[in-house]
Amino acid sequence: MLSKNRIPWQEKPEGSKDVMWRYSENPIIGRYETATSNSIFNSAVVPYEDGFAGVFRCDNKSVQMNIHAGFSEDGIHWNIEDDPIVMKEGNTSMIDSDYKYDPRVTFIEDRYWVTWCNGYHGPTIGIAYTFDFKEFFQCENAFLPFNRNGVLFPEKINGKYCMLSRPSDNGHTAFGNIHLSYSPDMKYWGEHRSVLKVTAFEDSAWQCLKVGAGGVPIKTHEGWLMFYHGVIKTCSGFRYSMGAALLDLEQPDKVLYRSQPYLLAPAVDYEQNGDVPNVIFPCASLHDEEGKVTVYYGAADSVVGIAFGRIPEIIEWLKNNSI
Amino acid sequence: MLSKNRIPWQEKPEGSKDVMWRYSENPIIGRYETATSNSIFNSAVVPYEDGFAGVFRCDNKSVQMNIHAGFSEDGIHWNIEDDPIVMKEGNTSMIDSDYKYDPRVTFIEDRYWVTWCNGYHGPTIGIAYTFDFKEFFQCENAFLPFNRNGVLFPEKINGKYCMLSRPSDNGHTAFGNIHLSYSPDMKYWGEHRSVLKVTAFEDSAWQCLKVGAGGVPIKTHEGWLMFYHGVIKTCSGFRYSMGAALLDLEQPDKVLYRSQPYLLAPAVDYEQNGDVPNVIFPCASLHDEEGKVTVYYGAADSVVGIAFGRIPEIIEWLKNNSI
Amino acid sequence: MLSKNRIPWQEKPEGSKDVMWRYSENPIIGRYETATSNSIFNSAVVPYEDGFAGVFRCDNKSVQMNIHAGFSEDGIHWNIEDDPIVMKEGNTSMIDSDYKYDPRVTFIEDRYWVTWCNGYHGPTIGIAYTFDFKEFFQCENAFLPFNRNGVLFPEKINGKYCMLSRPSDNGHTAFGNIHLSYSPDMKYWGEHRSVLKVTAFEDSAWQCLKVGAGGVPIKTHEGWLMFYHGVIKTCSGFRYSMGAALLDLEQPDKVLYRSQPYLLAPAVDYEQNGDVPNVIFPCASLHDEEGKVTVYYGAADSVVGIAFGRIPEIIEWLKNNSI
Amino acid sequence: MLSKNRIPWQEKPEGSKDVMWRYSENPIIGRYETATSNSIFNSAVVPYEDGFAGVFRCDNKSVQMNIHAGFSEDGIHWNIEDDPIVMKEGNTSMIDSDYKYDPRVTFIEDRYWVTWCNGYHGPTIGIAYTFDFKEFFQCENAFLPFNRNGVLFPEKINGKYCMLSRPSDNGHTAFGNIHLSYSPDMKYWGEHRSVLKVTAFEDSAWQCLKVGAGGVPIKTHEGWLMFYHGVIKTCSGFRYSMGAALLDLEQPDKVLYRSQPYLLAPAVDYEQNGDVPNVIFPCASLHDEEGKVTVYYGAADSVVGIAFGRIPEIIEWLKNNSI
Amino acid sequence: MLSKNRIPWQEKPEGSKDVMWRYSENPIIGRYETATSNSIFNSAVVPYEDGFAGVFRCDNKSVQMNIHAGFSEDGIHWNIEDDPIVMKEGNTSMIDSDYKYDPRVTFIEDRYWVTWCNGYHGPTIGIAYTFDFKEFFQCENAFLPFNRNGVLFPEKINGKYCMLSRPSDNGHTAFGNIHLSYSPDMKYWGEHRSVLKVTAFEDSAWQCLKVGAGGVPIKTHEGWLMFYHGVIKTCSGFRYSMGAALLDLEQPDKVLYRSQPYLLAPAVDYEQNGDVPNVIFPCASLHDEEGKVTVYYGAADSVVGIAFGRIPEIIEWLKNNSI
Amino acid sequence: MLSKNRIPWQEKPEGSKDVMWRYSENPIIGRYETATSNSIFNSAVVPYEDGFAGVFRCDNKSVQMNIHAGFSEDGIHWNIEDDPIVMKEGNTSMIDSDYKYDPRVTFIEDRYWVTWCNGYHGPTIGIAYTFDFKEFFQCENAFLPFNRNGVLFPEKINGKYCMLSRPSDNGHTAFGNIHLSYSPDMKYWGEHRSVLKVTAFEDSAWQCLKVGAGGVPIKTHEGWLMFYHGVIKTCSGFRYSMGAALLDLEQPDKVLYRSQPYLLAPAVDYEQNGDVPNVIFPCASLHDEEGKVTVYYGAADSVVGIAFGRIPEIIEWLKNNSI
Repeated sequence: MLSKNRIPWQEKPEGSKDVMWRYSENPIIGRYETATSNSIFNSAVVPYEDGFAGVFRCDNKSVQMNIHAGFSEDGIHWNIEDDPIVMKEGNTSMIDSDYKYDPRVTFIEDRYWVTWCNGYHGPTIGIAYTFDFKEFFQCENAFLPFNRNGVLFPEKINGKYCMLSRPSDNGHTAFGNIHLSYSPDMKYWGEHRSVLKVTAFEDSAWQCLKVGAGGVPIKTHEGWLMFYHGVIKTCSGFRYSMGAALLDLEQPDKVLYRSQPYLLAPAVDYEQNGDVPNVIFPCASLHDEEGKVTVYYGAADSVVGIAFGRIPEIIEWLKNNSI
Repeated sequence: MLSKNRIPWQEKPEGSKDVMWRYSENPIIGRYETATSNSIFNSAVVPYEDGFAGVFRCDNKSVQMNIHAGFSEDGIHWNIEDDPIVMKEGNTSMIDSDYKYDPRVTFIEDRYWVTWCNGYHGPTIGIAYTFDFKEFFQCENAFLPFNRNGVLFPEKINGKYCMLSRPSDNGHTAFGNIHLSYSPDMKYWGEHRSVLKVTAFEDSAWQCLKVGAGGVPIKTHEGWLMFYHGVIKTCSGFRYSMGAALLDLEQPDKVLYRSQPYLLAPAVDYEQNGDVPNVIFPCASLHDEEGKVTVYYGAADSVVGIAFGRIPEIIEWLKNNSI
Repeated sequence: MLSKNRIPWQEKPEGSKDVMWRYSENPIIGRYETATSNSIFNSAVVPYEDGFAGVFRCDNKSVQMNIHAGFSEDGIHWNIEDDPIVMKEGNTSMIDSDYKYDPRVTFIEDRYWVTWCNGYHGPTIGIAYTFDFKEFFQCENAFLPFNRNGVLFPEKINGKYCMLSRPSDNGHTAFGNIHLSYSPDMKYWGEHRSVLKVTAFEDSAWQCLKVGAGGVPIKTHEGWLMFYHGVIKTCSGFRYSMGAALLDLEQPDKVLYRSQPYLLAPAVDYEQNGDVPNVIFPCASLHDEEGKVTVYYGAADSVVGIAFGRIPEIIEWLKNNSI
Repeated sequence: MLSKNRIPWQEKPEGSKDVMWRYSENPIIGRYETATSNSIFNSAVVPYEDGFAGVFRCDNKSVQMNIHAGFSEDGIHWNIEDDPIVMKEGNTSMIDSDYKYDPRVTFIEDRYWVTWCNGYHGPTIGIAYTFDFKEFFQCENAFLPFNRNGVLFPEKINGKYCMLSRPSDNGHTAFGNIHLSYSPDMKYWGEHRSVLKVTAFEDSAWQCLKVGAGGVPIKTHEGWLMFYHGVIKTCSGFRYSMGAALLDLEQPDKVLYRSQPYLLAPAVDYEQNGDVPNVIFPCASLHDEEGKVTVYYGAADSVVGIAFGRIPEIIEWLKNNSI
Repeated sequence: MLSKNRIPWQEKPEGSKDVMWRYSENPIIGRYETATSNSIFNSAVVPYEDGFAGVFRCDNKSVQMNIHAGFSEDGIHWNIEDDPIVMKEGNTSMIDSDYKYDPRVTFIEDRYWVTWCNGYHGPTIGIAYTFDFKEFFQCENAFLPFNRNGVLFPEKINGKYCMLSRPSDNGHTAFGNIHLSYSPDMKYWGEHRSVLKVTAFEDSAWQCLKVGAGGVPIKTHEGWLMFYHGVIKTCSGFRYSMGAALLDLEQPDKVLYRSQPYLLAPAVDYEQNGDVPNVIFPCASLHDEEGKVTVYYGAADSVVGIAFGRIPEIIEWLKNNSI
Repeated sequence: MLSKNRIPWQEKPEGSKDVMWRYSENPIIGRYETATSNSIFNSAVVPYEDGFAGVFRCDNKSVQMNIHAGFSEDGIHWNIEDDPIVMKEGNTSMIDSDYKYDPRVTFIEDRYWVTWCNGYHGPTIGIAYTFDFKEFFQCENAFLPFNRNGVLFPEKINGKYCMLSRPSDNGHTAFGNIHLSYSPDMKYWGEHRSVLKVTAFEDSAWQCLKVGAGGVPIKTHEGWLMFYHGVIKTCSGFRYSMGAALLDLEQPDKVLYRSQPYLLAPAVDYEQNGDVPNVIFPCASLHDEEGKVTVYYGAADSVVGIAFGRIPEIIEWLKNNSI
């Protein structure tokens, strides 16, 4: 739980009993902040040099989906490139991509790995690495289509890379459980395990239709802390909220605790109104050595917001509110 | 049309030609007013002692649905119990319940009867009685699943208890007509009759997909005044509005008048934004001896609002706007 | 298990290991055996005087659904009335009926009770009684719509009439579990209980979409023997097969055993071809004092077939093949 | 590109790089501006005498759809008739109409022609003419059902009337391409040609589900400028945006350019909230001799907004952003 | 009702009470009777010279749909061209066609007109004429997509060509009513009228989902005799049967009688088994001066069968069995 | 193309112009040939010792799906084990399996590899090996769910195992294209490539909904010969036919030829009638050094049939009928 960076932070509002709370200046990134963007949301950030770097989902005004690099000194104000990332060849020459969206970023060993939903005969998980957020090297897709929400653990587990993902179909997928897969080399993947499934409607309705991993899991003494999104289908469409789970450190397909209540659900204007109303979709988080954590989430498929919490408190809450 | 209580009231805004109008301080109950609530909406109130009591639908942050008791002096400011109602055995020992939602309350003879949508192998109509809103005694479910919106008349008709309901299916029911059933004993139900059906799209589109009874019908010289919800399906989901009907006093499956226009449809922020946008869902009303009536309705499946009207004016309007 | 009638019978084919087997001369009733019929299927028979009487589902060539009385000396060759049954008023004057289909018949105390799927603002359970299969007296519908497959037990249980049914919706219902309800008087119904639900796909796929009661349950020393239909959805539509369950004598919502394998599934020409291919739909059975049982079933929604078995052997098989 | 009228206008906000921009006082017509209206939206205006006239879609509070005449001096403040247009017989005595919605108006030769979605055994294209917006003469429907968004060119092409339309089905149509048809006499129609189809999701997602003509095409030296709506299906329903295309002057089924990005997509309160959230639906435009153009569009199926642009700039943008 | 041709004929089977009866040697055309055919069905025949000519739907083994010419001496044994019809330009140069199926043929004045379902940006009605069934001249499509089952009357009515059709959508259309349109010139069409709609399920279920015209209407003293198909949706898919209607001679959108029962429904092997089970689809008929009529129909989307009747008897039956 | 076995064979019927033809004694395996089977179909066979061995899909009478070993001397008469295969641990201890169906078998290097659709939190591709068809060792699943129709090439390509598969969803999958993946070790899989996609409806309708690999590809001098199934959706459900493709020897994701017409489509009784009508589903083939090939296919999800052809003739036909 070490971090040399000063992360964005705002104290809990007085009187609040919430475990996590929104930034009062949300959204931190508006929909039109690049030259051609229709919306900027579901995006990933990491500490980088003295500040922060990130990979951002920017849909342009043709509503084509792509990912852009960006930099920030404080994690709140961002300079996002007007042009999408241009991929070079990594461990393969086959770097086809009909579209790219919903990126995640993690640092492993010597480089930053980016994963995203990559359009290759349907959505699957694209992988690339970068050392500097300027040059990116695209690798083999991790899986066959159809898949979304591929998230790497920030270190090898049992000597292998380890990725969470959510097998999907080719449309507005109406199901979704979190699985985990291993790779010795970031090229071939196997040892697929089921991790987290949707709940019964009676037990926890906000996550009864689908669940998918959020940002890179955070290593704690008690386990991997994973934020995730859960979905319910109302008579007006899907509603996305955010929960958390604690996964076993050695055997991360083993769920130690998993939130019955949500941590954050759409309730304010920028989450309720946008291209897709009622969406909170976490894709990244920053944390420091004191246990403070700042979660970045896409709101209403239009803008980026952040929310704050303290890891020990979240874990305590998880233990008391586990399903 | 007698009531000894002073009901919540606000005069019609100047210049308004509406038959019913919203309270300017709506919503009167916010979504987070109990310790664990995600939303408080579709709820029922009655005069009780010197003030008011009610049964409230509170979905918690796991989005589990349950009903809570509450008390108020003025009908506007409410103290709602943090814990859901715990049922004791009424006329049966079978009081299973996977979930409870959308309560209604009425006083008959010597006690308050609560009905709600009860989860027993799917949604059906649960029944309980209370004398004091502290102890509640759950009885046999009225019907086989699947059913919703069970509403009792406030007195026996032809010597029998009489309940409105809306047969449903086990999901986001895409149909719905109001029926009526009788019971000699609150245990066995029969003599099922059709009351009010959806309209043709061309005639009154807001109520062309489904209709369901709102609060307890109000006895007037001209008939039972029933507020009800009507639903239209747009390309963005269901939209719930409120209308009214006048039912025959002796033979309440006979509809005397029925509103072609709606009385109230979602048009302000708290009705258009929430967990399910564009929902007005009446579950109760209070009225006094002057004919003033205050309707309580759930807004956007998130909060509670109230609206006002005068019964004679509503009936007059019904006669002139009946389909 | 007493019966004074000689029931239709044919011994098990040599070498067969099946618990139940088809009549070699099936179908016993063809589709065109009344003056106007398009199909005759899902029908009910009982011992009557020196032979048998029955109520038959005859869809006419307008594919209007109705029920007709019929008589037989041997249970195999039937004289079915060309005209549908005309109902007189039983315990009510409200005997509306848009259509009638899938009848069952049972003798209780002093008369024959007929139940069927009755069209009253959607499908629900119609009830009538007759003493002679000439005059029929229609009673109040048992339930609100939507319901199908209402089947009465052949005697009162705990002093009350007892009916199995399958709550449904208003189309080609894609779900269905068997419930049970009681009535003191054949007019008001309550004490609704869940009896038998669909199975998990992995456990017994032929009954994973819906299940519904077949003929009148047979009283045995070990419990009520109930034949039922189970449905699976293939990529070419629904497929109906037949299984059996043993219900507790005193508390018939308690399932003692329930068949994991089917007893009979569509596999011969008249079950695989017809207005709705791949349907076996039992509606009645006859049995004698030796334990021989003859099940009548609709085949492919077009004709009537029979199948044979021995009750002790069926029960033994049930115990060994229960899920 | 001649117009003697002073059209409503507001300069582009400083610093804006948008090709089209909204009026700061939008919406110009609210939902309750007639005596009985629930909403006023998707409507058409033309220069008329010294000011403007129009035909407005006003859904009343029964949510019955009809079209009303209206007049304005400045194109922004409108007097809309409380009563819907009453049609007289034009070229036929068969002027049945279950409902009328989404009108367009154009002046050809000596009169104003109105087209709209007319309910005649399903939605089809109604036609009427007027000289004064007081008397309207209804003609034969142009096509068989099911059709919507019929838009006439403002002059004969190759000696024949020419109409754009979008073949549809009888519900919330999930497909839609723009076609074109000719008529020698406004009674019989033929020579049907495909004009503009939906795009591939990867190329321009905002218009990948359906496209339909907006207002009357504007004649320019470079071709017919047609504003149109495009639709994407999100997991919360349909989202309507506005683009433009340039059609060949002589052979208008030939598309010269067609916008890959949208020109305007729902992003402000009155477009995101209403009876159907996230809808921008253009039905008319005014332009002057300088090339200024003012587009009238329905917002959220509730109110009317306007947006501004300059035709030369729009055409230049089209050439640079064509798919 | 004049015909100089000897039509195929077989007397009614002894004892039969049916109004129409099948040919005992059905199917008359098997599925593999051209070099590449997968199936030959829904096809049209007319008297031609001393025998008969026809246009046949032959799907090849790629299941591409096309129409082929054929000749016969007796109307039963056919020589069908191995190659599909090659169209020349008729009244237009736009003779695009993605596919052709379900042809009808009629002689008007001086030539044979063929109509069929033509693939032009979706299914619509193609038109061509021929003098000799060797050269065919394709004309403008009659309507915008989506349409199927276009059938011309065999003479002008009120001086105009007159066509029945069934507006559809772009898939397995789940609705369908028969309309009628007029044309002065076989190029432009208008005066669209509703003719025959689906029935209520309770009234005549076999035709409650869709209805579409069969072969060319036959002129009788009492009106135009039109055979048509009706469709019901079972839980195993669509089932197509055949009925008849009598239309007013002068005003053919006026239905004089219309069959409540079907005339023929799938009940024999070649109708119940094939590429689409349970389909009877009439596309043509022959009749002679005695009133004998022979209907040609596609069976199970695989082969061609014929059925016989006598026109006076059919009309008499229609009068007695009209809905 | 070497084979030391005498394969089942029957010459082409005289006069037939078909490229492949059915065995006159089909089906070779009936539905009840094990003690508990409901159906035996979609199964795989290989040469083994002096005869043949196979793995068979046997659904039992609970309609639970499992795979059974079997042996045969002539490839036509089979002894199939009554009990399903019991798996031992292969390269993993995680050998969970909710169900097993649709097996394929191929010999690579030193052992027989079995792949099948394995139930692990949804359908995915199970892998096992055996040396003797008595002991089977289950390995890691190849992919994340959801996948079906995993088929191994019979030798390593470019030093790696190579598998075809069809990504799916968790129900009656309505889409399906063939992909290809590589593995260095039968444990980790990557380098996923698209191989064969569905066709446009107009080009080849029998394969326009989904395509999936059939049996193990056959190595020929011209490429890998792959039989595959193609699916069309009719208004009565899915219809499965068989085609063939020729894949590049070195780079097998490259399609050299691919059949526009089908090779075999359901047309005889045992293919048209069964648990799922109109299904031909190839899972294996045998061939000899002369180029004779015998394809094993499941028919109507009920029984096993075989069909014959000659490889050179099939390849010649492919070249002339490629899309």
